[in-house]
Amino acid sequence: MTQSPPTPEVLRVSGQSRPNAVAGAVAALLRSQGQVEVQAIGPAAVNQAVKALAIARGYLVGNALDLTVQPEFIKLEDQHEERTALRFLVCAVPQP
Amino acid sequence: MTQSPPTPEVLRVSGQSRPNAVAGAVAALLRSQGQVEVQAIGPAAVNQAVKALAIARGYLVGNALDLTVQPEFIKLEDQHEERTALRFLVCAVPQP
Repeated sequence: MTQSPPTPEVLRVSGQSRPNAVAGAVAALLRSQGQVEVQAIGPAAVNQAVKALAIARGYLVGNALDLTVQPEFIKLEDQHEERTALRFLVCAVPQP
Repeated sequence: MTQSPPTPEVLRVSGQSRPNAVAGAVAALLRSQGQVEVQAIGPAAVNQAVKALAIARGYLVGNALDLTVQPEFIKLEDQHEERTALRFLVCAVPQP
């Protein structure tokens, strides 16, 4: 039996991130660890992150898994400036 | 005992929507019905929707509730054109 790590792996997504690539990483981490944290700063990055999460749900179907997301605000350092970012805590759940 | 309706209420969010107002509507529907669907077309709208969901989590704390989100792609009619949109299925869950 594996135990979830106390802090999930963090994937930082930008407006230039490819949603399919991020989705693959999200799905892999959910399969192996059951959770992952995705961070995004700004509307373009948030949009890419959400697209990646929607795509990742499809990748998990073959594992009888789905995912749920809980978004929250966090402060992140970006080029030496503190900016408000969005953090998505993503958890694997069994498919209904 | 109330039963969840078969199809959740739909809130359509635009890039001009105020996240606090959307958050209030999301929280109210989660309290009364346990679920709500949020739709957004385009990066600005998706960003406002996610901000609203992050804010709504704070509004639910006093009710001992939290929310989980499942994003997916849908086709929506926008000014007589079919566009790909994001749909967030939002469910109320007990606070851990």
